[in-house]
Amino acid sequence: MGHPVFDTASVVAALHGVRREWREAQQRSSEPGGREFPSRDALTEVVKSLKGVLFPMRLGPVDLRQESEDFYIGYTLDAALHALAAQIRLELRLYDSSKPAERLQAQAQSLTTEFAQTLPAIRRLLDSDVLAAFHGDPAARSVDEVLLCYPGILAMIYHRLAHQLYSQGLPLLARIWAEMAHSQTGIDIHPGARIGSGCFIDHGTGVVIGETALIGERVRLYQNVTLGAKRFTTDAQGHLEKGQPRHPILEDDVVVYAGATVLGRVTLGQGCTVGGNVWLTQDVPPGAHVTQANARQERAAPASVAQPLAFNL
Amino acid sequence: MGHPVFDTASVVAALHGVRREWREAQQRSSEPGGREFPSRDALTEVVKSLKGVLFPMRLGPVDLRQESEDFYIGYTLDAALHALAAQIRLELRLYDSSKPAERLQAQAQSLTTEFAQTLPAIRRLLDSDVLAAFHGDPAARSVDEVLLCYPGILAMIYHRLAHQLYSQGLPLLARIWAEMAHSQTGIDIHPGARIGSGCFIDHGTGVVIGETALIGERVRLYQNVTLGAKRFTTDAQGHLEKGQPRHPILEDDVVVYAGATVLGRVTLGQGCTVGGNVWLTQDVPPGAHVTQANARQERAAPASVAQPLAFNL
Amino acid sequence: MGHPVFDTASVVAALHGVRREWREAQQRSSEPGGREFPSRDALTEVVKSLKGVLFPMRLGPVDLRQESEDFYIGYTLDAALHALAAQIRLELRLYDSSKPAERLQAQAQSLTTEFAQTLPAIRRLLDSDVLAAFHGDPAARSVDEVLLCYPGILAMIYHRLAHQLYSQGLPLLARIWAEMAHSQTGIDIHPGARIGSGCFIDHGTGVVIGETALIGERVRLYQNVTLGAKRFTTDAQGHLEKGQPRHPILEDDVVVYAGATVLGRVTLGQGCTVGGNVWLTQDVPPGAHVTQANARQERAAPASVAQPLAFNL
Amino acid sequence: MGHPVFDTASVVAALHGVRREWREAQQRSSEPGGREFPSRDALTEVVKSLKGVLFPMRLGPVDLRQESEDFYIGYTLDAALHALAAQIRLELRLYDSSKPAERLQAQAQSLTTEFAQTLPAIRRLLDSDVLAAFHGDPAARSVDEVLLCYPGILAMIYHRLAHQLYSQGLPLLARIWAEMAHSQTGIDIHPGARIGSGCFIDHGTGVVIGETALIGERVRLYQNVTLGAKRFTTDAQGHLEKGQPRHPILEDDVVVYAGATVLGRVTLGQGCTVGGNVWLTQDVPPGAHVTQANARQERAAPASVAQPLAFNL
Amino acid sequence: MGHPVFDTASVVAALHGVRREWREAQQRSSEPGGREFPSRDALTEVVKSLKGVLFPMRLGPVDLRQESEDFYIGYTLDAALHALAAQIRLELRLYDSSKPAERLQAQAQSLTTEFAQTLPAIRRLLDSDVLAAFHGDPAARSVDEVLLCYPGILAMIYHRLAHQLYSQGLPLLARIWAEMAHSQTGIDIHPGARIGSGCFIDHGTGVVIGETALIGERVRLYQNVTLGAKRFTTDAQGHLEKGQPRHPILEDDVVVYAGATVLGRVTLGQGCTVGGNVWLTQDVPPGAHVTQANARQERAAPASVAQPLAFNL
Amino acid sequence: MGHPVFDTASVVAALHGVRREWREAQQRSSEPGGREFPSRDALTEVVKSLKGVLFPMRLGPVDLRQESEDFYIGYTLDAALHALAAQIRLELRLYDSSKPAERLQAQAQSLTTEFAQTLPAIRRLLDSDVLAAFHGDPAARSVDEVLLCYPGILAMIYHRLAHQLYSQGLPLLARIWAEMAHSQTGIDIHPGARIGSGCFIDHGTGVVIGETALIGERVRLYQNVTLGAKRFTTDAQGHLEKGQPRHPILEDDVVVYAGATVLGRVTLGQGCTVGGNVWLTQDVPPGAHVTQANARQERAAPASVAQPLAFNL
Repeated sequence: MGHPVFDTASVVAALHGVRREWREAQQRSSEPGGREFPSRDALTEVVKSLKGVLFPMRLGPVDLRQESEDFYIGYTLDAALHALAAQIRLELRLYDSSKPAERLQAQAQSLTTEFAQTLPAIRRLLDSDVLAAFHGDPAARSVDEVLLCYPGILAMIYHRLAHQLYSQGLPLLARIWAEMAHSQTGIDIHPGARIGSGCFIDHGTGVVIGETALIGERVRLYQNVTLGAKRFTTDAQGHLEKGQPRHPILEDDVVVYAGATVLGRVTLGQGCTVGGNVWLTQDVPPGAHVTQANARQERAAPASVAQPLAFNL
Repeated sequence: MGHPVFDTASVVAALHGVRREWREAQQRSSEPGGREFPSRDALTEVVKSLKGVLFPMRLGPVDLRQESEDFYIGYTLDAALHALAAQIRLELRLYDSSKPAERLQAQAQSLTTEFAQTLPAIRRLLDSDVLAAFHGDPAARSVDEVLLCYPGILAMIYHRLAHQLYSQGLPLLARIWAEMAHSQTGIDIHPGARIGSGCFIDHGTGVVIGETALIGERVRLYQNVTLGAKRFTTDAQGHLEKGQPRHPILEDDVVVYAGATVLGRVTLGQGCTVGGNVWLTQDVPPGAHVTQANARQERAAPASVAQPLAFNL
Repeated sequence: MGHPVFDTASVVAALHGVRREWREAQQRSSEPGGREFPSRDALTEVVKSLKGVLFPMRLGPVDLRQESEDFYIGYTLDAALHALAAQIRLELRLYDSSKPAERLQAQAQSLTTEFAQTLPAIRRLLDSDVLAAFHGDPAARSVDEVLLCYPGILAMIYHRLAHQLYSQGLPLLARIWAEMAHSQTGIDIHPGARIGSGCFIDHGTGVVIGETALIGERVRLYQNVTLGAKRFTTDAQGHLEKGQPRHPILEDDVVVYAGATVLGRVTLGQGCTVGGNVWLTQDVPPGAHVTQANARQERAAPASVAQPLAFNL
Repeated sequence: MGHPVFDTASVVAALHGVRREWREAQQRSSEPGGREFPSRDALTEVVKSLKGVLFPMRLGPVDLRQESEDFYIGYTLDAALHALAAQIRLELRLYDSSKPAERLQAQAQSLTTEFAQTLPAIRRLLDSDVLAAFHGDPAARSVDEVLLCYPGILAMIYHRLAHQLYSQGLPLLARIWAEMAHSQTGIDIHPGARIGSGCFIDHGTGVVIGETALIGERVRLYQNVTLGAKRFTTDAQGHLEKGQPRHPILEDDVVVYAGATVLGRVTLGQGCTVGGNVWLTQDVPPGAHVTQANARQERAAPASVAQPLAFNL
Repeated sequence: MGHPVFDTASVVAALHGVRREWREAQQRSSEPGGREFPSRDALTEVVKSLKGVLFPMRLGPVDLRQESEDFYIGYTLDAALHALAAQIRLELRLYDSSKPAERLQAQAQSLTTEFAQTLPAIRRLLDSDVLAAFHGDPAARSVDEVLLCYPGILAMIYHRLAHQLYSQGLPLLARIWAEMAHSQTGIDIHPGARIGSGCFIDHGTGVVIGETALIGERVRLYQNVTLGAKRFTTDAQGHLEKGQPRHPILEDDVVVYAGATVLGRVTLGQGCTVGGNVWLTQDVPPGAHVTQANARQERAAPASVAQPLAFNL
Repeated sequence: MGHPVFDTASVVAALHGVRREWREAQQRSSEPGGREFPSRDALTEVVKSLKGVLFPMRLGPVDLRQESEDFYIGYTLDAALHALAAQIRLELRLYDSSKPAERLQAQAQSLTTEFAQTLPAIRRLLDSDVLAAFHGDPAARSVDEVLLCYPGILAMIYHRLAHQLYSQGLPLLARIWAEMAHSQTGIDIHPGARIGSGCFIDHGTGVVIGETALIGERVRLYQNVTLGAKRFTTDAQGHLEKGQPRHPILEDDVVVYAGATVLGRVTLGQGCTVGGNVWLTQDVPPGAHVTQANARQERAAPASVAQPLAFNL
């Protein structure tokens, strides 16, 4: 008694000092002001609404009835779009805080409108993903089961929405959605990756797909597959060269089995198959079957001498 | 001003069109009606209750006291069983929507009763799993710590409940619980897999166990272990042959270290050990130790020529 | 009608029997009493508060303003410390339930005070982790994005807090936080692991870091990296020898690419690089680049004959 | 220790006995079964939805926008009507539990449809109430303020909805809504009371309006006004005669000031005024002003000898 | 920019000063410490549980079934009693903070046990209240409707529980429950009032019943009835004499109509009736009917000269 | 089947029509836009925070400790003030929607600052109210009990905050708070009323205090007291004359017992007492005791002939 149990005040002061150092180092203002930054919570709500908008009778509210779907969608979508526009404005402001508020607002609305108009196409793509999973997995009993249970489908819902934002120049919002999917499914798809219709990721835990990956139609991937980059190239000054295509291209109907690693801007030709745990840094011709055995031989060959020792995604 | 910010109505109409196409393609009714489909939220509540019923003083409510455990269990269990019966009815209805409501109801109640009666045995199995983790991990300090902290135990709670439903002909509900476990732990056990007592999955992220896997007693698995199927066999018409045993058999006391992949209906003999990252598609005799080195030799041998190039789970 | 739908009472009785058996086998009391055990829910609240205390304008409440940060931190920290002290008391009581309540209380407060005083240093370490991620990932656009989106950063926040508790002799609380991080990120760091500043874990799913691992400064790890132990050593009586250093040492500036497995008390020298999927059980000299190819050669050499067949974390 | 802190079991047993006595006395079944009774919580949700449906931009969700009102109303109304139909079915079942489930269901849907069709007229009546309050209170600054702040308006919203249910033969549901209003506003209007347009109840606490009251248009009432019944009449056997008109008739434009009590089937003629605290059991001619003074004189006159000594509502 | 929007810090300081003044004036400690005071929120939870314990199929959880009532009651009651014991300990501590913690704890448990044992009798009393309301109100259609809808019943549930605590020397907890009832129903019954079985308070808003009131069996009260005290008597030193009986006694079968005021330790004889708005400060013989008219005559008589000019409850 | 259960669409359309009519009649825009109106929910949060700020250890969070009061207050107050400023801006905008957003914002911040600076004085006034209740009620055992339990104190907390807003020209926000108090306590104080320190309203249900009432120090009021206006005066054109003083003045130390009605701009002189149920429309000299008897005589006197027949608040 007589003095506080914990010397909270001194910890507060010390934390204050650390924050000040950080802000000075980062050239951040220490001035009064609120958080002007996109909100994970707000985006969680938006994506929850959009899931209901896309699949009202499966991911919408339990008491929804088919005859009032459009009412539900209209209301939910409108509210979600306004909430999304507010987040878009916050991201735009990060890139140019000097822009007048009205300009930011108008730009955010315009981007939101554009986003909204892609939703029907996104639904159509997701339908193709659901069918691909249904046809690709002998254990699947119905398309509804696939939609409700398969982590690969959940990851595609997030990805196709996030990729749209990414394509519109909103990488931060896109990233937040991508990481939500990653946390829930263990599937880590960079929102920049372009993925064709009918994509099926089975099991999924540990899958990593890099920013510039190009994936064709009807591609199937299993758990722990990495579609990564090799070591980053640097320019004459030693700076990383950004934005270069550096992840694999998978043409239509490619299958990559569990644990396989494909690195660099290589092309897996149409219909080829990459076996489990295969380590691959070269092109594969259409229709080929790559296994650990023949992949190892390649690596032993002189051609592979040129392979980089390390890689990165 | 003067017109809506977003042209929500046209997006609503477009989405309507996509849904109609999907429903026509899937031969689904577009008639009025509610969602007659099992609910993930409802099953989340049921499993939460069952966890409390099975381990009242650890996973039940914080204010529970030992002297009123039975009161708590009786009330919670009864409510959970009624909620579960409702979900079972919904799954049964999917398989035969023409069956009269009373029949469905009676069948659901009968299945629920059967499920309830297995709970004591499930608790006993889970106790053996907890002990196995406690004895198998030098870092474990108490059985309580194991029960509360180990993702492998959480996965087994879900699996043993889900497997019971699966065995009673309710694969969809079973799958929903399995995916909840998968999302929380990264451990993906198909509810069809049969697992003996004293199973310990350490770390667990990336583990995949297939539908027809048979696992004996006191088996230990580490992260990223796959117990999968080889390429699906097809019949003369090229259709997948379903329901065939296609995943490994692990006899009692087998240990499979991290990253190992075991594919096909092979048998790992009692007490054998599979080393880390080993790729295995053949039987292993009891007591043997398989490492990457000797596994590779096998594969190089003629016998392995017959190995399929690709596989699937 | 006329009898209960489910024979709940008999299931309650059977479960009662199983619990009694368990408690007898575990020599637990069946006497009246409440749950005297640390609470996952309570610790969830504490860590949520500490995240806000450490990064108020990013992980604190949405309506917080910079000018009232210290008010927020002071209030939140004080409440969180009292809540944490209560949990610490519960863990201490597990180890010595005969200790008088006042002694436990005093010890818990003293440990909490010590914990609180490390928070500024922890924030500083986390700042270094954020910068490391920002500089190490070409896709990162701002330190804020890193803090909000990167699972590797989330894992480090949990780890640095959990490690502090572990270091103060509170392994159970530490473990609970570690498993929360594991569930959310797929990154499984034992709270005993010591990790220097500027640590960056990219993608992260499937990473496992063992209890006695020692990690220097500016180390980078990718998904599915294991820093584990080899087979446990047992003493003359066949008991596991606990507490021995048994996980790798990574000196400053080491990089370990995706899927690599490093086992045992080996040392990866300063600035060395371990390639993807490499399997490593020997020391690596500073600056070296280890790839699958040269790692395999090692294993083929006589020296590796002595390698154990199996391992464990 | 060693025995429960509280002898809960014996209290449970004693309560069991009291319930059994009650159920026997009430000739209730003690057989297994759930609660087949309308739910206050469910009706709370329904009325919350209906308030939003009636006044979307004021009592609907905060983020609603005028351009999506109809979407919101359509979805919310449909869900609310289904929820209401379920409650109606429960009330109908109370009155005739032998009726087949399909019949109850059909009847409930038909009643709900009828209810729904009155909503536009109810909104129109409520608009007239809002205007009456706005014009009647010099402190009111806008119709919005009236809608949001005035307890008299809140009471009318509940009453007009409850009265509709009452008129359709659903007095229990109606009563539950009426009591919600009573609890929130202190205004106790029996759902049977018929009230014309433009009704304004100012302050309101303590107002009681009986079941057979008839209130014309543009009537104003102040706090603590009672429109009650005199002593119940009983028939030859001493049974209460139910359903007889026994509460006052207030013609158009009547004003009753605070604390006035009007009892029995008297008629207050058009445009008359009843002063504060007046006690009134006789008709009042149109346009008259009744004060405590002249009311007292009446009572002293022979005519009032016939007045009953007591009254009831 | 550059300074806080609001000068929060100076308001904080000024509020600090006002609190210090208050604490000094009240001789309160300003030392560190938590709130050691009964919690309204905790008591809200306890009473909610007790309502379910007393009327499980009407006020318990919606999914409760008759066959598991006892399970529900046992669990809920035990948890509620422990929570109540904690609140009782806090009230006891207010009266004697020097008492050792163990003594307070033991006393609290003993009082809680005593409280628990009265619950069956309280349920029996409440059943009599329900029947009284059902028989007394021609509008009542079923006992269930009465239990669920009538504010008078709700007030009696709170009162009978609160009165028990009051009788056990816990006036503060009792008062908190009484005020909850007051807020919800407008009925203000001091927990000290003793009320016999079969009490029916109709409408109820504005009813006030004082601390030492004694109410017999089958008594009926209407809205705005006051059973109050006359002016407080003071002793020679001018201090209020506390604890003296100062509120009315109502013998069995008394009826008091709306708005009547009865003040002082007068006795209303068995079966008498007090008319609406009557002002009464004298005894009433059994069977009498008091109306405004004859009450006024009394007051005009010399005997009433001695009536105090003012009163208080 | 085959058609919607309810014809929701036609009800939606009909409601649309009613709203359009209303908006046209009220000359409201039917254009797209959100709700630009103060939010009851937001104000509920603000007042909850302010209650904690004013009485941190009694009405603040349960886990608050005295040593961190200022931290809590600083954070909570700052957030509450920003939230309040947003609501103030919305009210200001109602009065002049043409004002530029920046002007509205600046004005709202200035008004909020002014409001914040009165909080210490408001706390001091409330302390005087608590003491008045404690000293005025023989049943009160501690000031804490008074603060936590007495509806009169709750009403004064709301009123003193609401009155401050009213005085700053924000009658709508003030009204919303006043009605929250009304709903919870049955006490209806117009936020315009000016009330001196040490005010005690006992029981409180049914109390109504008008907009221009002036109440001195140490005044005591009981339940159902009305301090109202007589009939509104109208000007030559028949319009209500607003803003004129029309409610009573109560000088210091006045006591008004339950049910008394005081109407018009009369003055109750210092220390006078008004008995229960008295009806009063004339001045009362200091120190006088008014009872029903002597009040009636007044009314019988010629002077009272001039009394208006009706009144209003």
